[in-house]
Amino acid sequence: MQKKEPIILITNDDGITAPGIKALVDAVRGLGRIVVVAPDSPQSGMGHAITIGHPLRLNKVDVFDGIDAWQCSGTPADCVKLARDKVLHEKPDICLSGINHGPNHSINVIYSGTMSAAMEAAIEDIPSAGISLFNFDFDADFSIAAQVARNVAERMLTQPLPPHILLNVNVPNATQGDFKGVKICRQAYARWQEQFDHRTDPRGKDYYWMVGKFLNLDKGTGTDVEALKDGYASIVPVTIDLTDVKTKEWLEAEWKF
Amino acid sequence: MQKKEPIILITNDDGITAPGIKALVDAVRGLGRIVVVAPDSPQSGMGHAITIGHPLRLNKVDVFDGIDAWQCSGTPADCVKLARDKVLHEKPDICLSGINHGPNHSINVIYSGTMSAAMEAAIEDIPSAGISLFNFDFDADFSIAAQVARNVAERMLTQPLPPHILLNVNVPNATQGDFKGVKICRQAYARWQEQFDHRTDPRGKDYYWMVGKFLNLDKGTGTDVEALKDGYASIVPVTIDLTDVKTKEWLEAEWKF
Repeated sequence: MQKKEPIILITNDDGITAPGIKALVDAVRGLGRIVVVAPDSPQSGMGHAITIGHPLRLNKVDVFDGIDAWQCSGTPADCVKLARDKVLHEKPDICLSGINHGPNHSINVIYSGTMSAAMEAAIEDIPSAGISLFNFDFDADFSIAAQVARNVAERMLTQPLPPHILLNVNVPNATQGDFKGVKICRQAYARWQEQFDHRTDPRGKDYYWMVGKFLNLDKGTGTDVEALKDGYASIVPVTIDLTDVKTKEWLEAEWKF
Repeated sequence: MQKKEPIILITNDDGITAPGIKALVDAVRGLGRIVVVAPDSPQSGMGHAITIGHPLRLNKVDVFDGIDAWQCSGTPADCVKLARDKVLHEKPDICLSGINHGPNHSINVIYSGTMSAAMEAAIEDIPSAGISLFNFDFDADFSIAAQVARNVAERMLTQPLPPHILLNVNVPNATQGDFKGVKICRQAYARWQEQFDHRTDPRGKDYYWMVGKFLNLDKGTGTDVEALKDGYASIVPVTIDLTDVKTKEWLEAEWKF
């Protein structure tokens, strides 16, 4: 009996018409049955938002040559939930999210819609990876990122990840000539330093635009920020169990209840 | 010289007019200078969304007797960022988020706007806690949750948490008579099983409401789900470093790049 073709669910947070998701679909052609369920509009910075206060729309579209695809009015996490329940009616073998226009290294794993789709998949026991390119341009060159994405997808299908683990894959904005390869990393401690841009509207009322500067505050080695800076793609294995075991022991000893 | 009064930043995701945030403000009166910056409308399920695609409004309001308070048009994470940069102009000593109308135990830490505000504070090196009550009602009895919140806040001010740790505090819907006390716990492995409610609009087009059933799939002990079921309040220390160290070692050994 022939082995069933694996189902590869693809989503993103830049929207179904972004060049990054097209690059990802093309990168993994031939590895299985590809199904796309992605937001109908950009959803960057949506974190792990889900839509409970209003209804969701889901419409079949024809944007990837020969690939079944649906656009959804919800968030990236909504897309994964709807894909499983209303499109596939079963669990896909793997879920890939991206390729994001812009990096999601370090603390961005928490803010990123791309990563939240991958995290939603991991919660639902679907091995997953979010892939992001360190270039925000619409017409960025996705060729290295596509090559890394295919490599990661192949490994996910042949050497499965432990349960409930997702991969945060970031690719430097490199050419074939200066790309150094792939490194397994830990998440750097970094954060955004906000500087709100304060303006006044035509009616004299205040408003603020969020702008920020990315600060790498990590003094150690082996981080994703460091790998990217050195020209490597970074892979950070990410858990959905956020318990801090060391602090748990400390609290039990010091905060006696 | 007199010691500076600690600054306690309070926010939530149910909106500044929810009874839960009033209960939290009243619970910690006297412990320091309380400042409230909270969403002007409900933000449940917003996860760690931040607002980058449109501008934010921030307006002073008078809703808590004698307490400085601002309402913000953004998400809970936006509130923490704006509070620090545009209201306080300095780091508060602690940040408390809640009291949430409904629990945020287990995997809900990832979906919850209440917890994302606490997580944003932890990223910014502000010790923080999200407090949630296992009762979704508008007019829930917050007295036990308020008592736990004050107890936790007092400890946070006197026995400071390690850097970048937040607490996920959940309180059972108990009376003084049957409340069992507080337990330090680990995050249970649980997930929502979605069952989308499929409807047709008056123009004949399909739409979906997200509904779901909470499934506790954790077979172990010491979890927050278990503690709440047994009548205890649960405290899970939460990290912002999502690296899975065990899988990192496995990838280094097995996924040779």
